[in-house]
Amino acid sequence: MARADDQPSSDLRDRYLSTRHLTDALARPLSDADAVIQPHEDASPAKWHLAHTSWFFETFILRDHVADYRLHDERWPFLFNSYYEGEGERHARARRGMISRPSLDEVRAYRAHVDDALVEALPQLGEDVRALIALGIEHEQQHQELFLTDILAALHENPLDPAYGEGPPVATGEAAPMGWTRHEGGTVEIGHSGKGFSFDCERPRHARLVAPFELADRLVTQGDWARFMLDGGYSTPSLWLSDGWAWVTENGIEAPLYWRRDDGEWSRFTLAGRRPIEPSLPVTHVSYYEAEAYARWAGARLPREEEWEMAASNADPAAGHQLDEAGAVMPLGAGTMFGDCWQWTGSAYLPYPGFTPEEGTVGEYNGKFMCGQFVLKGASCATPRGHSRASYRNFFYPAQRWQFTGVRLARDA
Amino acid sequence: MARADDQPSSDLRDRYLSTRHLTDALARPLSDADAVIQPHEDASPAKWHLAHTSWFFETFILRDHVADYRLHDERWPFLFNSYYEGEGERHARARRGMISRPSLDEVRAYRAHVDDALVEALPQLGEDVRALIALGIEHEQQHQELFLTDILAALHENPLDPAYGEGPPVATGEAAPMGWTRHEGGTVEIGHSGKGFSFDCERPRHARLVAPFELADRLVTQGDWARFMLDGGYSTPSLWLSDGWAWVTENGIEAPLYWRRDDGEWSRFTLAGRRPIEPSLPVTHVSYYEAEAYARWAGARLPREEEWEMAASNADPAAGHQLDEAGAVMPLGAGTMFGDCWQWTGSAYLPYPGFTPEEGTVGEYNGKFMCGQFVLKGASCATPRGHSRASYRNFFYPAQRWQFTGVRLARDA
Amino acid sequence: MARADDQPSSDLRDRYLSTRHLTDALARPLSDADAVIQPHEDASPAKWHLAHTSWFFETFILRDHVADYRLHDERWPFLFNSYYEGEGERHARARRGMISRPSLDEVRAYRAHVDDALVEALPQLGEDVRALIALGIEHEQQHQELFLTDILAALHENPLDPAYGEGPPVATGEAAPMGWTRHEGGTVEIGHSGKGFSFDCERPRHARLVAPFELADRLVTQGDWARFMLDGGYSTPSLWLSDGWAWVTENGIEAPLYWRRDDGEWSRFTLAGRRPIEPSLPVTHVSYYEAEAYARWAGARLPREEEWEMAASNADPAAGHQLDEAGAVMPLGAGTMFGDCWQWTGSAYLPYPGFTPEEGTVGEYNGKFMCGQFVLKGASCATPRGHSRASYRNFFYPAQRWQFTGVRLARDA
Amino acid sequence: MARADDQPSSDLRDRYLSTRHLTDALARPLSDADAVIQPHEDASPAKWHLAHTSWFFETFILRDHVADYRLHDERWPFLFNSYYEGEGERHARARRGMISRPSLDEVRAYRAHVDDALVEALPQLGEDVRALIALGIEHEQQHQELFLTDILAALHENPLDPAYGEGPPVATGEAAPMGWTRHEGGTVEIGHSGKGFSFDCERPRHARLVAPFELADRLVTQGDWARFMLDGGYSTPSLWLSDGWAWVTENGIEAPLYWRRDDGEWSRFTLAGRRPIEPSLPVTHVSYYEAEAYARWAGARLPREEEWEMAASNADPAAGHQLDEAGAVMPLGAGTMFGDCWQWTGSAYLPYPGFTPEEGTVGEYNGKFMCGQFVLKGASCATPRGHSRASYRNFFYPAQRWQFTGVRLARDA
Repeated sequence: MARADDQPSSDLRDRYLSTRHLTDALARPLSDADAVIQPHEDASPAKWHLAHTSWFFETFILRDHVADYRLHDERWPFLFNSYYEGEGERHARARRGMISRPSLDEVRAYRAHVDDALVEALPQLGEDVRALIALGIEHEQQHQELFLTDILAALHENPLDPAYGEGPPVATGEAAPMGWTRHEGGTVEIGHSGKGFSFDCERPRHARLVAPFELADRLVTQGDWARFMLDGGYSTPSLWLSDGWAWVTENGIEAPLYWRRDDGEWSRFTLAGRRPIEPSLPVTHVSYYEAEAYARWAGARLPREEEWEMAASNADPAAGHQLDEAGAVMPLGAGTMFGDCWQWTGSAYLPYPGFTPEEGTVGEYNGKFMCGQFVLKGASCATPRGHSRASYRNFFYPAQRWQFTGVRLARDA
Repeated sequence: MARADDQPSSDLRDRYLSTRHLTDALARPLSDADAVIQPHEDASPAKWHLAHTSWFFETFILRDHVADYRLHDERWPFLFNSYYEGEGERHARARRGMISRPSLDEVRAYRAHVDDALVEALPQLGEDVRALIALGIEHEQQHQELFLTDILAALHENPLDPAYGEGPPVATGEAAPMGWTRHEGGTVEIGHSGKGFSFDCERPRHARLVAPFELADRLVTQGDWARFMLDGGYSTPSLWLSDGWAWVTENGIEAPLYWRRDDGEWSRFTLAGRRPIEPSLPVTHVSYYEAEAYARWAGARLPREEEWEMAASNADPAAGHQLDEAGAVMPLGAGTMFGDCWQWTGSAYLPYPGFTPEEGTVGEYNGKFMCGQFVLKGASCATPRGHSRASYRNFFYPAQRWQFTGVRLARDA
Repeated sequence: MARADDQPSSDLRDRYLSTRHLTDALARPLSDADAVIQPHEDASPAKWHLAHTSWFFETFILRDHVADYRLHDERWPFLFNSYYEGEGERHARARRGMISRPSLDEVRAYRAHVDDALVEALPQLGEDVRALIALGIEHEQQHQELFLTDILAALHENPLDPAYGEGPPVATGEAAPMGWTRHEGGTVEIGHSGKGFSFDCERPRHARLVAPFELADRLVTQGDWARFMLDGGYSTPSLWLSDGWAWVTENGIEAPLYWRRDDGEWSRFTLAGRRPIEPSLPVTHVSYYEAEAYARWAGARLPREEEWEMAASNADPAAGHQLDEAGAVMPLGAGTMFGDCWQWTGSAYLPYPGFTPEEGTVGEYNGKFMCGQFVLKGASCATPRGHSRASYRNFFYPAQRWQFTGVRLARDA
Repeated sequence: MARADDQPSSDLRDRYLSTRHLTDALARPLSDADAVIQPHEDASPAKWHLAHTSWFFETFILRDHVADYRLHDERWPFLFNSYYEGEGERHARARRGMISRPSLDEVRAYRAHVDDALVEALPQLGEDVRALIALGIEHEQQHQELFLTDILAALHENPLDPAYGEGPPVATGEAAPMGWTRHEGGTVEIGHSGKGFSFDCERPRHARLVAPFELADRLVTQGDWARFMLDGGYSTPSLWLSDGWAWVTENGIEAPLYWRRDDGEWSRFTLAGRRPIEPSLPVTHVSYYEAEAYARWAGARLPREEEWEMAASNADPAAGHQLDEAGAVMPLGAGTMFGDCWQWTGSAYLPYPGFTPEEGTVGEYNGKFMCGQFVLKGASCATPRGHSRASYRNFFYPAQRWQFTGVRLARDA
């Protein structure tokens, strides 16, 4: 995690407050009822995200390191712990949508209470604790993205197609044809270099052997995907992994998540409500199974994490369409390595050689999830700008697709 | 259903408005978030009850019988139809808790809109339509009870034990010992006599043969139930129906719904929050399986519906603890035939000889549920006063217990 | 149960042996593998039936009442107890198909061992024990029917459509049009009179009031059913009970069990393999839901148990197509009250007024199942001849249809 | 796959016949009923293995490459295709235990029929077809192992603890303390070298970077495992992956599969029936979750596939306790790289760089399973001797443990 001594105290305070304020801003369009809905077990209510991120700071900073701090409400940690076994019993994840009280306004007050206490305490906190605050900031940024993907899932449940916010004008036309960029491979270093913040799972930096390969110069678009569908992509078992085909048939999958056909016309549900398919924009909300099948159909494959990271080493992590403070979250382009959508790799999420989890309960942050998931690289339109880097390892199960997940193709050179 | 011509138009208007106002009053303590929660598939969100009862009037009165009436929102019937196949496709029952929009306030405005339109139209409506309004009033009264049982279930999901309202002081002491009242039986008429409102399932009135029997002079109390538990009631298979025993073991049942043991002490969750066991008060929230097992343990049985109805023929249906306009809903006593809790009978909910469903879509009201359920008689603390009569047939599946369901014993004379 | 002193000892011995031999004969066409298959949780392997019926005699007669009797194998009662909680722990019902050992031949030897011991002991046994033997005989007859329905279900799992035995030539043509027989009703006695054997659930005989009604003079045929299907019977929700419609849609039901359509042509799987629809023969393998929906479609209803029993009081219980010693089990006709198929009534299976279960563990035989099931009357082609009487109450859950269940219509006069 | 031209025709014939005969020998102790049982969805009936391996030769050799060959029974391919989508519709995997006919003897006749036809055709078959035969031999060897693990699962379902065969005397005492062997790592080649048979997933051979590491010099024993259990291994969440802990709690896992505690004493079910824990023998039937948790508890980790393969490069693949023609299948030792039990690695089963599936339907053999599974290396007591090599990649899902799966520890040097 961050070497907090890199950062003067005022910087940390500013980053803390701007992160917290962005979360508050994201919640502004929501009603008390919007904020309590849990659309499925992978997602959490908006209010829960607001509270849980505060619980993280309250627990690991204020409770553990600030003398005389009193919990805002001693019954709330049971509600707002996510999965830290080291913090004891907690409310069942699947029942988070049942908690109408505390209300959204009460949770906003909780946020303010924690912010006041933390800002007041900050000057007295030592380096280790400031590193934990930096971790908490990154943690909250991750929840900002989840906040948006979960509210999208929640609103999608409503047959009235309500919108979270306004979107840009509908894009027309097709994207430019996809090209390939060749990379020569060799012995490549991947993982975090040690400068600035990183999660434990990005470390240690280590060498890998990479064979020559080519990487697509843009993401797969909605137009590309429509051609895959038209060509029988969802009804051709030979294109699919065995687990993927079972998933398709058991769930009647025939398009990306949030796509719907009415009278032969496909549309997709977005944070701006229902919109037509926009062929030039990247496809999002596809599972690993779909990404992998698409790649096979296209005569290509998914990149490995070392390939992607090698190719991105000179890219600007803050470029591309990402979440900014104004909350512009609509995918708009298809070119950059960072932004628009997370990119599935063909690499399992496993520990790097020499991996050591963080000490203490925060060591549960990453390591215990290293089983059955795949790595995604880059950033999405819902990733807060400033949260990205080439060594970042996002991870989801192969059937999950409620995140802004998409596809960039690779192939052997 | 009611012969509406018994009632002058002003009476119907008054009954309509007072019923609607009571529903509004019941919703007053709730937040937008409280009102959206669906705790389980049998229950509905409070907001849904508010909207659905309005949809009933809007659909079967205003849309069908009032020229030029325009739907408040033409997309809402899809959301607020409950189970009327004749009214076409509808939102999935299990997903009612996902509808944050329209908001609680928007649904309140919907109620006002329907009320205004209906009161304005009322003077012009014919006898048949006024009978449908009378049905709608009874329908809304049923939902007032469901509103309370469902909000109890919703708040119970919250580990913080929030209260819907205040309750009376905790009752202490034990109830008087249970006595038996002998009834001679004979050829008995049951079912509705035709005077005043009734549901189709209460008709036609017909004769049954009843053997001499005895009926308990009070309900089974929480104190009685504690003795059943102490005697191993929940761990003795010979006391249980086969389905009941499977239900106990598969669900780990060891007490009535909402009872909880902490450090050896039982408490129960109520609309007034968590309270101690009150031995003199009737036990509520027991399933048919539990009621039947308790009766066997007590050397008795459940009454048949004709026995209960015979015994209640001279009782005052408006006596006992029932829901009044002030919203006093705490069970307080254990004696009367009506009030405190619904009483399981040993009779299956089946059509009376000669039963004919109502004409049209409202014919789905009762008849299609005549399979697998048991009849309950009486009324509960959540039944609106004025809604009860001896011929009333409530019905639930044998495992259901989120209603205020209790037990009155019977035995052969 | 039987007053066994009605019967000289030699009669009981003969009845015991002929019953046991019929079971043996039914098992003759089966291989060791055929006999181990459990097609679904409601059904049991053929071998299990052979063993369980022997366990019944071994446990309740030999072990309990014959000095010095040693169990054939003391580990087997755990395997072959069905549901008697009073007999302790037992093998899980759903796993009966996993027991390849003991083999079919070993179970045959078990049967012989029990037979020898019982026949030897019989002359010394008192009246009560002989009554238990009579119960065991009736019990085994019930399992003869289950044996056949379960082996039908087992063979039906095999895509090769293997036959259990040969059937009669295919019947052609339609049945005669259905007529109605009027019954005047009145105060009617139903239940067992006390002469000969009866199960506890048939007692006590008691009076019921019956209104005038009409009963169809034949069963509903496969030809009738085909017309129901053609008329959209399975896709018209207004014909169905709410639970029934849920069952239809969740399970994709569109025909009776064992019916299949290939290239537009329906056939049905039988003990003689796959056969065409035979329009003149009774429809079998329909659920209560289907029977009830059919009756509504036909403008009729199902008979109540008292109506059926009244109408059958003069019929010959041994007439009609029933299982004889030669094992002729194909439904062949549609007229008689007894035979061809069990007839669903609209009556819930509940205790008669004054019902008292048998003493001891055999008291679990009937009473604990009195919840959620419907009564069927008559007998089927798989019911052993001699096992039937007008007061007999068969019972199944409304979705179950792997028995030979069919429909006879009734209507109010 | 094999370069079949390495092998003179007579060798292939001999290998074919000896493989087929071993399968026949493995089936000899089974009855018709034993052979039909399917204990769970991962396992198949013994008879199905006998038939499916024959279907493989019949389909891909005889049907496709031998003129005038007529299928033994044209309805059987539907029953005995496993998962080859390219071969069309097939019987549901979960219902394989329902097929009592064809009988075990009929399937034996099928095997003989295929053997005769194949041996007769062999001299005329070209190189490509002979390579497919070599693949079929390896395929059948894999099913020999599954045959044994599945029959173990089947017999374990029986509360009578029947044995498949005799086992060696019970081993007493503890194994020698575990030691560590250091490996220096470097750039290492893994994957198949091209000499002799290999599956497509073992290719292409390619280089990996390996850091210095240490590998345990013996397998984890049952005695080791008992100490893990005693130390609370199954009740300490911090030892487990998140998915693993969910698996433990949802399934109530508290020991390896087939272990059972009676009166405080653990025993385990084996092919020789129930036996005591033998502390000096390797633990088997543990899942990836358990293996991974054990390693964490022991302060170590699981080896990566490249580490294991590097360490095994000089080991004899035919050494250790493996299945020989006499069918001696009891785990007996704990030292060698090959034999006793498969060893979980920490590597996901993913395609090697440059992986290309086999052409045609047999290309479904491996590639479509490359998702969500982990690689196991070595061989088990049920692996046919001669089937093993260092590049072999076995694979299972992390919760699966009905195979002979065990643990060898690794750690960073």
